[in-house]
Amino acid sequence: MIAGRKPGCSLPRDFFVDDEIYRLDLDRIWRRSWLFVGHTCQVPEAGDYFTLEVDSDPILVIRGEDGAVRAFHNVCRHRGTLLCASDSGRAGRIVCPYHQWVYAPDGRLLGCRGMQESLDRSELGLLPVRTEVVEGLIFICLGRDPPGFEEARAELAPMLRPQGFERARVAKVIDYLVQANWKIVWENNRECYHCNVNHPQYIKANFDHYNADDTSPRIAEVLASAARSSEEKWAARGLAVTHRETGMTVFPERHWFSVNRTPLAEGYVSETMDGRRAAPLMGEYAEPDVGTLRVRAVPSFWNHSSCDHGVSTRVLPAGPRATRVRVIWVVDRSAVEGKDYRLEELLPFWQLTSEQDWSLCELAQRGVSSSAYVPGPFSTYKEYNVEGFVRWYLRQVSGE
Amino acid sequence: MIAGRKPGCSLPRDFFVDDEIYRLDLDRIWRRSWLFVGHTCQVPEAGDYFTLEVDSDPILVIRGEDGAVRAFHNVCRHRGTLLCASDSGRAGRIVCPYHQWVYAPDGRLLGCRGMQESLDRSELGLLPVRTEVVEGLIFICLGRDPPGFEEARAELAPMLRPQGFERARVAKVIDYLVQANWKIVWENNRECYHCNVNHPQYIKANFDHYNADDTSPRIAEVLASAARSSEEKWAARGLAVTHRETGMTVFPERHWFSVNRTPLAEGYVSETMDGRRAAPLMGEYAEPDVGTLRVRAVPSFWNHSSCDHGVSTRVLPAGPRATRVRVIWVVDRSAVEGKDYRLEELLPFWQLTSEQDWSLCELAQRGVSSSAYVPGPFSTYKEYNVEGFVRWYLRQVSGE
Amino acid sequence: MIAGRKPGCSLPRDFFVDDEIYRLDLDRIWRRSWLFVGHTCQVPEAGDYFTLEVDSDPILVIRGEDGAVRAFHNVCRHRGTLLCASDSGRAGRIVCPYHQWVYAPDGRLLGCRGMQESLDRSELGLLPVRTEVVEGLIFICLGRDPPGFEEARAELAPMLRPQGFERARVAKVIDYLVQANWKIVWENNRECYHCNVNHPQYIKANFDHYNADDTSPRIAEVLASAARSSEEKWAARGLAVTHRETGMTVFPERHWFSVNRTPLAEGYVSETMDGRRAAPLMGEYAEPDVGTLRVRAVPSFWNHSSCDHGVSTRVLPAGPRATRVRVIWVVDRSAVEGKDYRLEELLPFWQLTSEQDWSLCELAQRGVSSSAYVPGPFSTYKEYNVEGFVRWYLRQVSGE
Repeated sequence: MIAGRKPGCSLPRDFFVDDEIYRLDLDRIWRRSWLFVGHTCQVPEAGDYFTLEVDSDPILVIRGEDGAVRAFHNVCRHRGTLLCASDSGRAGRIVCPYHQWVYAPDGRLLGCRGMQESLDRSELGLLPVRTEVVEGLIFICLGRDPPGFEEARAELAPMLRPQGFERARVAKVIDYLVQANWKIVWENNRECYHCNVNHPQYIKANFDHYNADDTSPRIAEVLASAARSSEEKWAARGLAVTHRETGMTVFPERHWFSVNRTPLAEGYVSETMDGRRAAPLMGEYAEPDVGTLRVRAVPSFWNHSSCDHGVSTRVLPAGPRATRVRVIWVVDRSAVEGKDYRLEELLPFWQLTSEQDWSLCELAQRGVSSSAYVPGPFSTYKEYNVEGFVRWYLRQVSGE
Repeated sequence: MIAGRKPGCSLPRDFFVDDEIYRLDLDRIWRRSWLFVGHTCQVPEAGDYFTLEVDSDPILVIRGEDGAVRAFHNVCRHRGTLLCASDSGRAGRIVCPYHQWVYAPDGRLLGCRGMQESLDRSELGLLPVRTEVVEGLIFICLGRDPPGFEEARAELAPMLRPQGFERARVAKVIDYLVQANWKIVWENNRECYHCNVNHPQYIKANFDHYNADDTSPRIAEVLASAARSSEEKWAARGLAVTHRETGMTVFPERHWFSVNRTPLAEGYVSETMDGRRAAPLMGEYAEPDVGTLRVRAVPSFWNHSSCDHGVSTRVLPAGPRATRVRVIWVVDRSAVEGKDYRLEELLPFWQLTSEQDWSLCELAQRGVSSSAYVPGPFSTYKEYNVEGFVRWYLRQVSGE
Repeated sequence: MIAGRKPGCSLPRDFFVDDEIYRLDLDRIWRRSWLFVGHTCQVPEAGDYFTLEVDSDPILVIRGEDGAVRAFHNVCRHRGTLLCASDSGRAGRIVCPYHQWVYAPDGRLLGCRGMQESLDRSELGLLPVRTEVVEGLIFICLGRDPPGFEEARAELAPMLRPQGFERARVAKVIDYLVQANWKIVWENNRECYHCNVNHPQYIKANFDHYNADDTSPRIAEVLASAARSSEEKWAARGLAVTHRETGMTVFPERHWFSVNRTPLAEGYVSETMDGRRAAPLMGEYAEPDVGTLRVRAVPSFWNHSSCDHGVSTRVLPAGPRATRVRVIWVVDRSAVEGKDYRLEELLPFWQLTSEQDWSLCELAQRGVSSSAYVPGPFSTYKEYNVEGFVRWYLRQVSGE
C-alpha cells in the first residue's frame, strides 16, 4: 500500500477514502503527535474549559486553580460518560452528569458518593492528556510517550513572544465540517499554486504565490526590497529574522513545526481586506509595520498573525472523508468589540480565504474518490511543500 | 473479546460501537429471546395490526378473525416486499402493495393471481413469528426454537391480572430514536444511582433510589412502614406480595423476566407529577392505593403501572449506536380523553423521566466511544443490577 | 454465494444489501457495460457538457469543436480535482478550478502553467471514456475493453431513426434518489404484473399488463386487431415491425439491448393522461398514430417514445441500497414550451408512473433487507423477464 506511491506524485486513492488507512492515520499520527487545540486566552480563569474531539475521542482542556492549563479525556472514570458536553464553559468542579462523580480541574477524583469504600480513589482521576503551552498556544499529545517538545519551544517561543498571544482575547470562532480527508486539507495549505485565481483577497496582501517559475525581475526586486527594508526595521525593533525567498517556506520536511516572519505587500500592514489595521496593536508591537508572523505545526495547526490580530486554524480528523476545522481570530485583550474593532473588518480576509480553500478541498475529495483517479505530478516550483508533506506523512504511517 | 471483561466493571468499548458484536447481539439475543412488542389493546378488533422493526427485520402483529393475536415477518413470500408500511391500521386481508398477493390475518396465502397453478400455495403463507400473550402483553420470539414461556406466564399472570391490561386502551405512544447502544439503555434502567439529580419527578414518588449506603434510620423506617402497611392492605384485597427491600429488585440475574408490587411514597397513589390519580381506576382495583406494579423482561421491556394507568417501554436495537424506544401509556378501556383523563396530567411523569434517561444514555455513548475509555467499577450498593445485566448479557453472547 | 440462487426465484438477501456484492456489481457490470448517459440534444453546441456519477466515478460528457460527443473521467490529471462541478454547462476550455490546468473539449491538456517543462503534456490529457452515439442516444463504457457496439447499432438505428432524437430538445429532467438496490429497480421494470393496481394511468394506454393467464378472448381480439391495423399502417409508412404478443417483449435474456414498436390502446396516440398528442410530431412521423417505440438497455436505460415526445430513464448505482434515476422528457427541437406544449400535459403520465415504481422499489428494498426474507417464486406468465434479468445478472457477475 504505502510502497505504491510514486515519488513526486499525489497519493493513491485509498489514502483519501479507505477506513483502514484512516485508522492508521489515527494511530500513527493523530494519537502520537503534538496537536494544537486552542489559545490559553480561551480559558483565562481557573475552571474555564473548552472541549474538542479528535476523531471520536472527546477531550477537555481546563485551567486549574493553580493557573495551569491541562487536558484530560472528557470521559468519566465510572462508566465512561461524557463529562462536559458544552463547547466551552466554566466549572469549579467537573461533575459527571450521570452519577455526579466529582473531579477537580486538575483531574483528581474528589467524590464518588454511592461507591464502595474499598475503591482506590487515587487511581480514578481523569485520564490526563499531555499538555504543553508555548506563548499562549496549547498543544496536547494523546500518546503515552510524546515526542519531545523542547525543540519546538526553543524555536517557537522567541518568535511568538512579540505577538502577545498570552495577553489576547478571542474575537470570533467559526467551525467548519469540511467534506474532505484531512490530508487534502493540508495539501491545500502547503502550496499557493492555487492562490492566484482562488484567493483574490489573499494574493493582494502576500508574496507566497510567486515562485521560481513566475517571479519576474520586477517582482523579484519588489520582494527583495520588501524583505530588505522589513529586515532592517524589524531587526532594529528586536523582531526576529524574516523569510526572504520567493514561494513558501519549506515545511514539514525538516520538523513538525515551523515559524517565520515575512513582509506583507506594499500598502498592507494587516491581513485585512484593505490592508489597514482593524484592531489595536497586539503584544510588544510598537508600530503596525511588522509583516506577518506565521506558524505551522503538522498535523493540526497554522496561524497567520498581523500587527493587530492573529488567526489560528485548527484541523482535526472526522472520518476518512471529513475534517473538522476551527478558525479562531484573536485580538489584544484590551480591545473592545464595536469600539476598538469591528468583526466585519476583522473577519472577511481569512473567512473568505478559508472558505475558498474548503470548497477546493471538497472538489479534490470528490475527484480522488473516482476509481479512475490516477495520481498526478506535483509542480517542482510550486508544490515542493506538498511533496514534503506527503513524505512526512508516509514516514509517520510507515513507522520509519 | 468476551473474556476481556473485568468483573464488577463496565463493558469494554467494542461492546458499544463494534459492528460484529452488534451482529452477535442480534443473533444470540434479539433473534432468540422473547421480546415484548405491544399491548393486545392496540389491536382490539380482528384485522387490527401494528408493525415494528427488530434491527432491520420488519414484523407485523395482527389480530385474527378467531381473536388470536399473531406475529409474522412483514414480508411478502413472493419477492420480499414490505407488506404493511403503516405503523398501525386495520386490514381484513393483508394485500401486498406490489402484486396483490393476499394473505389472511392468520397468515395463510389466500390468493396470488397471475402465478402458475403448480405452486403449492400452502407453503407460501406468511412466515410466522412465535407469539405469546400474557394478560394483555404480547411477546414474540424470532427464533425457531424459543425458550419456554410457561415459567414467565406462571409468574407474571397472577401479578398482572389486577391491572386489567386486557381491558385497557392506549392513551398515547411516543417513539424515540436514542443515539446509544441498546445495552447502555438497559444499564441506565438497571440502576437508580443516577436518579437523585437526574429524575427530580421520579424520586418524589419512589423509594428505589435509596440503597444500603444512603438509607438512614429514618428513611429505613419510612420504607419499612410503607411496605408493612401496603402489604397488609394489598393482602386483604388479594393483591400479591410486595418488594420490601431498599434499592432495586434483583434482575435479570435469575430470570429474563421479573414482576413485583412496591409502595409509592407518602401522598402518591400514582406516578404522576402531583401523585394524584389522573385517570379512572384500572382493572380489578377498588381503590387507588395499590402502589406500583413493575414488570421487566430483557432485552426489550419494562412497565410501571399505577392504579389508574400503565406505562410500557419497548426497547429495540437499531444499530451499534442506536436504539428505538417506544413508550406506551394505557388507561382503562372506558376512559375518555378530555373527560376522564387529560394527557397533560397523564404523560409528564414518565415522559420527563424517559427523556432524561435518553439524554444520559447519549452522553454515555459518546464517552464510551472514546479510544481512551477504560471500563470503570460498578457501585456494589447501587449498581448490582447493572453487574447482573452485564453477566446475563455475557452469558447470552458467549453461548454458555 | 452466486451458486445459492434457486432458479425461478428471486435473489437472496445479500444481493440487495451486501457491500461486497455491490462492489462486484460495479466491477463486473457497471464498469464493463455500455451505459446510456443522455441525449445528444443535451449538448447541442461545441463545449456543451453534462456530468454524471457512476457510483462515485464522476464523468463528463462534452461536445467537441469537431461536433463529436466524447466522455471523460471528470477528474484533473494533476491532483485529481473534480473538473466540472455543475450538472451541465458550456465550456470552450475545461479549466480545473484548483490550479487552472486547461483541457480542450477533446481531452488534450492545453496548459498547466506552473509545472516543470520536463513533463510530457501529451500523457496528461483527460482520461477518456469510450463513447458511442446512436441516433441521438449517448452510450459510454468505463471499461478498457468494451463489448462490441455494432450489433446494437445495427438493430437500434433503423428503429430509432423515425423518432428524430437527433433533432430533439430536452423539455424536462427530473432526478430521483431511489432507496433501493439497482437490481430492484430493474426487476420492477421487467414486469407489468404490478401494473394493474399500481399504474392506473399507464394501463389505460398500454397492453403489456396482459399476459397468457389473463388475456380473455375479447382482449386477445382487441390486441390482435390493434397489432394488425398498426402493422399495416406502419408498414405502409416504412416504420418497422411491431411487438405482437401479449405481455412484455423478452429481454434481456438474448441481448443487452432491445427495441420494438408496439400499439397503444384505442384512443391513445401518446402516453399522456388523456392519450392525446401533447407536443408537435417528432422526427419523420407524418401522423400521430405510430404506437410507442420502446428501447431498453441493461444496466442503465429504457425509453418509451410516442409520436410527440420521448421519455428516457437512466439508472445509475449509488450504493447497495440506493439508485440514482434520471427521467428525461424530449420533444421536437422546434417545439416551444408554453406555445407548442405545456409541461403539465407532457409530464404527468411518466412522472406518476415512475414515482409509483420508485415507491414500490423502496418497499421491496425494506422487505428483502429482513434477515427472514426467503426468495419467492416468479410468475412464469408475468415475470419471465425478471427471471431473464436475474439470469443475465448472474452470468455477468459470475463471469461466465
